[in-house]
Amino acid sequence: MSNERLIYLPLGGAGEIGMNCYVYGYGKPDQERLIVVDLGVTFPDMDGSPGVDLILPDVSWLAERKDRIEAIFITHAHEDHLGAVGHLFETLGRPVVYARAFTANLGRHKMDERGHDPKAIKTVGKFPETVTAGPFRVSFLPISHSIPESAGLMIETPAGRVVHSGDFKLDRNPVVGEAYDPELWGEAVKGGVKALMCDSTNVFSPLAGRSESTLGPAIEDLVMNAKGAVVATTFASNVARLKTLAEAGERAGRSICLMGRAMRRMVEAAVETGVLTNFPTVISIDHVSEVPRGNLMLIVTGSQGERRAASAQLANGKYNGVELKEGDLFLFSSKTIPGNERGVIRIMNQLSEKGVDVVDDAGGKYHVSGHANRPDLEEMHALVKPQILIPMHGEHRHLREHARIGAENGLQSIVAVNGMMISLEGNRPQVAGYVETGRTYLDGSVHVGAMDGVIRDRIRMALNGLVMVNVILDENNEPLGEPWCEIRGLAETGRSRAPLVDVLEEDLDQWLRRAPNKVRSDDAKLEDGLKRVVRTVTLEEIGKKVEVTIVISRLS
Amino acid sequence: MSNERLIYLPLGGAGEIGMNCYVYGYGKPDQERLIVVDLGVTFPDMDGSPGVDLILPDVSWLAERKDRIEAIFITHAHEDHLGAVGHLFETLGRPVVYARAFTANLGRHKMDERGHDPKAIKTVGKFPETVTAGPFRVSFLPISHSIPESAGLMIETPAGRVVHSGDFKLDRNPVVGEAYDPELWGEAVKGGVKALMCDSTNVFSPLAGRSESTLGPAIEDLVMNAKGAVVATTFASNVARLKTLAEAGERAGRSICLMGRAMRRMVEAAVETGVLTNFPTVISIDHVSEVPRGNLMLIVTGSQGERRAASAQLANGKYNGVELKEGDLFLFSSKTIPGNERGVIRIMNQLSEKGVDVVDDAGGKYHVSGHANRPDLEEMHALVKPQILIPMHGEHRHLREHARIGAENGLQSIVAVNGMMISLEGNRPQVAGYVETGRTYLDGSVHVGAMDGVIRDRIRMALNGLVMVNVILDENNEPLGEPWCEIRGLAETGRSRAPLVDVLEEDLDQWLRRAPNKVRSDDAKLEDGLKRVVRTVTLEEIGKKVEVTIVISRLS
Repeated sequence: MSNERLIYLPLGGAGEIGMNCYVYGYGKPDQERLIVVDLGVTFPDMDGSPGVDLILPDVSWLAERKDRIEAIFITHAHEDHLGAVGHLFETLGRPVVYARAFTANLGRHKMDERGHDPKAIKTVGKFPETVTAGPFRVSFLPISHSIPESAGLMIETPAGRVVHSGDFKLDRNPVVGEAYDPELWGEAVKGGVKALMCDSTNVFSPLAGRSESTLGPAIEDLVMNAKGAVVATTFASNVARLKTLAEAGERAGRSICLMGRAMRRMVEAAVETGVLTNFPTVISIDHVSEVPRGNLMLIVTGSQGERRAASAQLANGKYNGVELKEGDLFLFSSKTIPGNERGVIRIMNQLSEKGVDVVDDAGGKYHVSGHANRPDLEEMHALVKPQILIPMHGEHRHLREHARIGAENGLQSIVAVNGMMISLEGNRPQVAGYVETGRTYLDGSVHVGAMDGVIRDRIRMALNGLVMVNVILDENNEPLGEPWCEIRGLAETGRSRAPLVDVLEEDLDQWLRRAPNKVRSDDAKLEDGLKRVVRTVTLEEIGKKVEVTIVISRLS
Repeated sequence: MSNERLIYLPLGGAGEIGMNCYVYGYGKPDQERLIVVDLGVTFPDMDGSPGVDLILPDVSWLAERKDRIEAIFITHAHEDHLGAVGHLFETLGRPVVYARAFTANLGRHKMDERGHDPKAIKTVGKFPETVTAGPFRVSFLPISHSIPESAGLMIETPAGRVVHSGDFKLDRNPVVGEAYDPELWGEAVKGGVKALMCDSTNVFSPLAGRSESTLGPAIEDLVMNAKGAVVATTFASNVARLKTLAEAGERAGRSICLMGRAMRRMVEAAVETGVLTNFPTVISIDHVSEVPRGNLMLIVTGSQGERRAASAQLANGKYNGVELKEGDLFLFSSKTIPGNERGVIRIMNQLSEKGVDVVDDAGGKYHVSGHANRPDLEEMHALVKPQILIPMHGEHRHLREHARIGAENGLQSIVAVNGMMISLEGNRPQVAGYVETGRTYLDGSVHVGAMDGVIRDRIRMALNGLVMVNVILDENNEPLGEPWCEIRGLAETGRSRAPLVDVLEEDLDQWLRRAPNKVRSDDAKLEDGLKRVVRTVTLEEIGKKVEVTIVISRLS
């Protein structure tokens, strides 16, 4: 027994916000039985991952040990926790996936979309119901968050108990779903907890978080006083907010319409699983045009400025025949995630051009966060009383600050980033090793490693433009015709005011005709020389260091 | 006389924050004599302008009328007001440029860098000194901002007086440079003002702005209590802030070093023009290593996360031999401009990884804005008492809100965006026409129109990747060898697990051999057919709609 160990290994989510994937293992070193907690995605951007569809954690370490995976547990249905299940299910050897009813409902749709059996996802009830997975006994501890049925996990192991907080806030009145229940949690953690892995997102927010239920009056007030149509956007998965918004509309005598596929899917899942009851009656998009503007309230997707979402389309023109006008009101009941500012601001300005009044969360009146702020984190520490605190779900700066707070409060704490394997045997966490980790890109229908150079090549073409050169040589290495150039993403004329391709072709031709046979007969040398000519010409003509592709055809 | 008119025409800066360029004209319609106020740039980003060096306003309207330009006036030395002068000076027919001493000093460097005579920039004293430029008499009204010697312009015309606010805040104690002087402004506007063109940047900030001088105590406190080296970053042009930071360092017994070319240039210009006096002694970078960490304060460029600036290099590794360590402190005495969040956060996390404590402006203690907030704007309206208020220097939503406030306070107001020519004769502003406007990109050494498609092609390559196909045909339209493919920015293998280029080449070859002679003999038809094959194969193999370039060589 003495050489068995309990390990914790984040493969995603520790050192970033997004793409959560945490591994726990118990057993003899390198023979540990494993469970995976959460399997999420993160979203690409033009800066670092242009054209990519989704970013997934690199789970090669797990894939090589798939026979040791007992199960996957999903804490809640946000994309950064659930989004990769369908994509990586096969890679991980089709393990059983456990989740609560609402999460399982959405997860099964994802499995189905990727051609997997939805039944691989099993629904589990809340604590004290327990799933046994190899040496682990796992139960779901309900906790409030910005999506229904979020849960922390109580993970019992032969080496002690671990609480994995999941994403959480301490909301005693969350509008939809279970309230934070300190008694239930107190009951669960009785007998002591070895380690708490804890959400760090809002560690820099100094004041205690506010309840979802505090927003109702301000939103009602706003909607009540609006003259034209009211449009509100929020995260599609924030079912409680959808209810608050819809109820505000209903009280103001407005017909409610949900716009955006993701939002309707969320409400559907919440109703099907009994999480959501008494949601106001909604009308279908087809009937929107029959409702006078002053009696209309649209609740739409796209709070982050996503180009294809309902909000962007409404801002840009029409969406399903609906067009916004002077005097309408548009409410962002959301915060802008860092990096999305440009997209959100673009929408705000397009709405302004239409004469629509835009209200955002500047005053904190129309949005509350779903994550625990610093005082709430400390309350959680005090409630769970772990020996060890390992911050997760945060960028490096969040993890470091959270670890600092833990240490101040007498907890053994460590900053464990993706790929760092931590052993939890002793009285303090120990680094047991490092595992190669990173990101893979779903690009179209294929997976591409973040370090494969594929995306780097795309970024280079975007920054530098491309010159393509074709050279045809006969069996004596004599050029047949002039070199042929094509350019993409470059100015057509430069300093000499002649077309850039003409200047290139002339200089390449001259160089080629002067090149000695030992160069012309050697593809590598020839390519090298032609590239140098292209780079010299483009630097001179247009002042840019361009990308170059040379194709040499030899006829024989 | 009756058919002469006074016009206002924003070509940049009205409907965006950046790239300011405003035109005033007086005379018979289409024969107005013109002055240009500010000629700035805006900065590219990967989303919309990858690889671009600078974005300039499209001044073709002005260039076509360059014989009518009397002068250019620059209100202050920020890049979004001064940055395009060197680039567009030639295009606008080398007009005389007027500015105050500090702005002129920096402007002359820019002229010199672009190979123009620095003497084209004339230094003008402050109000009541007046420059006559055709029908205009212009004087510089000192006003506080986040750079020394910012000025509003009093523009006297035969049709009345216009006040162009420039960028401003109402700071009675700005640390460096002239305080807001309501008496001087009161004196200047005596006799009535027809129109006020007014900064709108902070119209959504509800509380009166705070003075630059309020920051000193908190910054001193922070620096005094720091143990290791202190690094502070702010906008290089905020000379007052540099002074506050340096003085805090000096009082804490620290040696001050300025890092980053832009920052040293700014301090140099401020000292040369007498704007800055009593700046603490600084040490050169070469001597930094001799100073104990606890006695060191670095003031560095790169508050916006710019990749090549000192702050990014310090976060990433070393800068000029200086390396940050556990226990050092890094202060962002700045706000993050929307769109720059990712870059700033990257630096913060890199610093966190080094164990450096990062302090930002989250609590409002270490930064104040350089722009007038809503109550300050209203104070300016009340001071100038214009008949007409035209908001400028703002996105559409800022202009609209500012116009709304003006109207509420009884001013004739209009939202005038780039390209909208406004006539100011009557009692209210009238739209006199629309002018084509937009952006041009400085890309390497050439100017590229934003709508030319060059940058669009680069973005497409970044999103979709590129397949290049080479086909060689003989005089009978018979293919010589197989088509040759190269890919860039695409996965090497797809669904069939064979190399993508092999699958492409095989399918292209089959199609080509089957193609009838009337297709093979026709370049357009041949290209079309080959493109279709490429798109079908790539969609099937890797699920992407790729960019395609076909090169057909015909040997005869």
